Amino acid sequence: MTNDHLLLNWMEESRALVHKGQVADYIPALAQASPDALGITIHPVQGSPLTLGDCDQIFTLQSISKVFTLILALMDRGEEVVFSHVGMEPTGDNFKSILKLELVPPGKPFNPMINAGAITVTSLIGGETPEEKWHRILAFIQHLASDPDIGFNEDVYESEKATANRNRSLGYFLKDVGVLEGKVEEQLDVYFKHCAIEMTCKQLARLAVILANNGLDPDTSRQLIPAKYVRIAKTFMVTCGMYNASGEFAIRVGIPAKSGVSGSILALVPGRMGIGIIGPSLDEKGNSIAGMHMLERMSEAWEFSMF
Amino acid sequence: MTNDHLLLNWMEESRALVHKGQVADYIPALAQASPDALGITIHPVQGSPLTLGDCDQIFTLQSISKVFTLILALMDRGEEVVFSHVGMEPTGDNFKSILKLELVPPGKPFNPMINAGAITVTSLIGGETPEEKWHRILAFIQHLASDPDIGFNEDVYESEKATANRNRSLGYFLKDVGVLEGKVEEQLDVYFKHCAIEMTCKQLARLAVILANNGLDPDTSRQLIPAKYVRIAKTFMVTCGMYNASGEFAIRVGIPAKSGVSGSILALVPGRMGIGIIGPSLDEKGNSIAGMHMLERMSEAWEFSMF
Amino acid sequence: MTNDHLLLNWMEESRALVHKGQVADYIPALAQASPDALGITIHPVQGSPLTLGDCDQIFTLQSISKVFTLILALMDRGEEVVFSHVGMEPTGDNFKSILKLELVPPGKPFNPMINAGAITVTSLIGGETPEEKWHRILAFIQHLASDPDIGFNEDVYESEKATANRNRSLGYFLKDVGVLEGKVEEQLDVYFKHCAIEMTCKQLARLAVILANNGLDPDTSRQLIPAKYVRIAKTFMVTCGMYNASGEFAIRVGIPAKSGVSGSILALVPGRMGIGIIGPSLDEKGNSIAGMHMLERMSEAWEFSMF
Amino acid sequence: MTNDHLLLNWMEESRALVHKGQVADYIPALAQASPDALGITIHPVQGSPLTLGDCDQIFTLQSISKVFTLILALMDRGEEVVFSHVGMEPTGDNFKSILKLELVPPGKPFNPMINAGAITVTSLIGGETPEEKWHRILAFIQHLASDPDIGFNEDVYESEKATANRNRSLGYFLKDVGVLEGKVEEQLDVYFKHCAIEMTCKQLARLAVILANNGLDPDTSRQLIPAKYVRIAKTFMVTCGMYNASGEFAIRVGIPAKSGVSGSILALVPGRMGIGIIGPSLDEKGNSIAGMHMLERMSEAWEFSMF
Repeated sequence: MTNDHLLLNWMEESRALVHKGQVADYIPALAQASPDALGITIHPVQGSPLTLGDCDQIFTLQSISKVFTLILALMDRGEEVVFSHVGMEPTGDNFKSILKLELVPPGKPFNPMINAGAITVTSLIGGETPEEKWHRILAFIQHLASDPDIGFNEDVYESEKATANRNRSLGYFLKDVGVLEGKVEEQLDVYFKHCAIEMTCKQLARLAVILANNGLDPDTSRQLIPAKYVRIAKTFMVTCGMYNASGEFAIRVGIPAKSGVSGSILALVPGRMGIGIIGPSLDEKGNSIAGMHMLERMSEAWEFSMF
Repeated sequence: MTNDHLLLNWMEESRALVHKGQVADYIPALAQASPDALGITIHPVQGSPLTLGDCDQIFTLQSISKVFTLILALMDRGEEVVFSHVGMEPTGDNFKSILKLELVPPGKPFNPMINAGAITVTSLIGGETPEEKWHRILAFIQHLASDPDIGFNEDVYESEKATANRNRSLGYFLKDVGVLEGKVEEQLDVYFKHCAIEMTCKQLARLAVILANNGLDPDTSRQLIPAKYVRIAKTFMVTCGMYNASGEFAIRVGIPAKSGVSGSILALVPGRMGIGIIGPSLDEKGNSIAGMHMLERMSEAWEFSMF
Repeated sequence: MTNDHLLLNWMEESRALVHKGQVADYIPALAQASPDALGITIHPVQGSPLTLGDCDQIFTLQSISKVFTLILALMDRGEEVVFSHVGMEPTGDNFKSILKLELVPPGKPFNPMINAGAITVTSLIGGETPEEKWHRILAFIQHLASDPDIGFNEDVYESEKATANRNRSLGYFLKDVGVLEGKVEEQLDVYFKHCAIEMTCKQLARLAVILANNGLDPDTSRQLIPAKYVRIAKTFMVTCGMYNASGEFAIRVGIPAKSGVSGSILALVPGRMGIGIIGPSLDEKGNSIAGMHMLERMSEAWEFSMF
Repeated sequence: MTNDHLLLNWMEESRALVHKGQVADYIPALAQASPDALGITIHPVQGSPLTLGDCDQIFTLQSISKVFTLILALMDRGEEVVFSHVGMEPTGDNFKSILKLELVPPGKPFNPMINAGAITVTSLIGGETPEEKWHRILAFIQHLASDPDIGFNEDVYESEKATANRNRSLGYFLKDVGVLEGKVEEQLDVYFKHCAIEMTCKQLARLAVILANNGLDPDTSRQLIPAKYVRIAKTFMVTCGMYNASGEFAIRVGIPAKSGVSGSILALVPGRMGIGIIGPSLDEKGNSIAGMHMLERMSEAWEFSMF
């Protein structure tokens, strides 16, 4: 079978599994997503992208944006500042857990991929005002995607802002222990906005391939991200990128990846390709069921694992 | 020795211990309190109050207000409503802990004496608006104290409001799990205000003697609080009134009591007397060191323990 | 209605509730108990005991023995030694929880009514050997019950010993942190034995009335237990006696009580009466459903609450 | 500078840091280790091993044995059985923590690199009796090391056995929840023995190079371990190998590694080399201070990171 045929077979297989999960429904804008949509773009470091399935579907990045705010914060403030505010360890808890903030003084979030850590990282992005921080984040994503039209979904943003009380709880806890600087609502506002950045699989795969290529634009060979920060991002994607299923994903698939509750996954095979997937039906840990299955099949067949 | 002499001796003893603790310093208005101030009023159910020491000192109620907001919520909404929002169990954790909200679904606060529970109870007070809730609480306290001049300390309130990020974290968590209704900031605003209600030992002892007298005004014999709600309040004061030192206090002293981080303690001997104490130096669990020592001495000598 | 009629009515009511719970089934000997058995003995401080229902039923004390091992340890070693090994605070966790031993260094059990605390207290009982400790405990119970024929259920003991791996886990944790002295298996052996002491409601009520009478034998007026240790025991029974439903029991019933997973409850109204109940169907927290209902009814009608 | 010179410089640098930590002292046999000993062997996939420093020092494997018992259990029982008993996720807690066993029902250990997980894995090793399990483990290590003289340290084993009450606590908890089969003491006995297996850096590096070579003996090219199990082991070493500093190690060094409280580290650069280090002074998380520093230097200079 050709690769295209294989992929189409796996897509069919994957679609058959989506009834085991459910679409995120904590905000209406997410709940409307079709559970059995499935789209994938594979963007090789060398060569043209391959796109299959529901790839015209536009989705919000959700937690995937955490990878790029981490990179931007590192570029803006350096490792020392960033890692004095957020740790490097997986937690074993779910992404919105508040437990370790109280249990492990002084309440520094364990890593930048859980909500508490990503809110903290957002606060470290350069910019005098929340608006400036936000515009810098958006511009950074547009720049990487080489697409100035990328924007954010105002409905999703407004819904998150109206309902994200757990994130507020995290934010005020972080403020209380002195980890989060500035005004909590302002930092959260920037956080909600970057979670609501919209794109397609194709654009997501473009972001991924830059990471797969150590920060170099595969078209122009310009260094869009310093290689050392790509390395840090890839490491976090392996140890903490798939929520508290990251360990299993590392065993089963073995590549850097980050998922979002929109059902999106950004994945990459270092030196080889970037991958963007959308499949809104989520397993109990918040990862796209179909997406996980696709990546597992691809990794087995094409030996993706770094390990 | 007469009782007065005994009390003066114990006060001297107690003052000698205050260097072992420290005044609450998380807001400037509290930090200014003199660590070795010590005042006590004993208000017998029958007879005149006895006042010794620094009894002109005005302090804020802080957590002591939790007893009266619980009573008012019970009077306004009844047991069924109140206890569908807040539990009846001690936690073993500190008063500002958020752990059990996450660890024990569905996140109902364990009791009304911890911050999470008291914020929830505050939201249940009758009133169309936060202002109305607040005025009803203040009026209730004034009514019990028989003193329409009782007010609140605006500085303390403003400081709490400006810095109480842990309480905000609790509030938004409670909102997220559906336990807290209404707007979090509005409920917190009422909460901060009633924590900042000001009085003296003498007034505090007057509140206490009403509880000691099963809700009857000792002067007029009018029923100011239904006896069944006094009983509930007294029970919570025994099981959860002295933060996570309540169990030890029950063993050592054995009476209903509630402390506040201002160093105040409201205590009572059922059927016999109400007691109001101020002594700002706190032990590590947040209870007045001198106040605890006074009560222990009094309980031993005068057989206060209910057990 | 006479008291007897009231009690019979309440027994009927209570029996109707037992299908909501279930008999402890972690060991076969307990699982054989009839779920709708219900027996009660009321032993007044002055006057003759009243016995109703299935009072010939013999049951094992289980957690009720914790009250008497605490008292004996206090008599053997004094307050200072006992409370340097075990705390005085309720936990909010279930009786077999290990969480706080790790979460709150140095791992001292929070109180003597949870398993970790009771195992520790058992180790403090006087005696050169485990056999001697055990014989002293049994003799103490026989002495209080004024019945040298009280023994223990060998089947229950053997079953517990064979299956009580959670208690072993607690024991070895306590050993690891230096709280438990001696050999863990030996201490556990004594613990399993005293949990398996057998009696009837009538005998249980006799134990209870001694506590209700401040340690005095109601028949002979001899001081069987020093009053100060009775006070401590009663206090713990109020704050921690009914597992993590103790707070609610204090509100609803308001008297010292201790339950066991055999469905037994020892309760007392200070100065008035001791109560022994057996009703094997348990609610989710481990308390006898019928027994709780009986006590609630009695407390309402006859004003038992200390609060 | 040649590589040898670089290594010697880094060893000097590393030795200067050892005063910041301390030698494990929970058993006498470990406490006797010299804090500033430091030895390293680098075993390339192709070519001769390079050995520097205190390489005649014999040490016990401690937690490093967890890697090989995992591999042997996988070879004996397959992935399905092993991963039905133990998970694949990092915990964020220390290696001896019991918290998640209670907090996350049904109490399956999160991964095979924490003590609870490794005890469970030990129980899955093939063999009718504990002796047979143990002999199979030892034979497997001897076979990999190509050295039939490798044995275990009886003193260390006896000390562990006598004092390892936390491990017993974990074992009995696992037994209670049904995760651990067989007799707890027997499983622990095997566990204590394999933790006490002794070797030198040179032998450790030989074990490591087999993993670096995907299970192939670098000398004979025989497949000593199926490649798929080597991959699983390497993945766990990255996500959980360095206790709850694994995330940071992945960022700073980026290679599969496993440390033991003897101050030993087994590390490997896939396809390139195996590394064995001994340096007994430990940081607060239990990793060799000098060893960590050496690996960080080497990784920076020679681009070890897989990420």
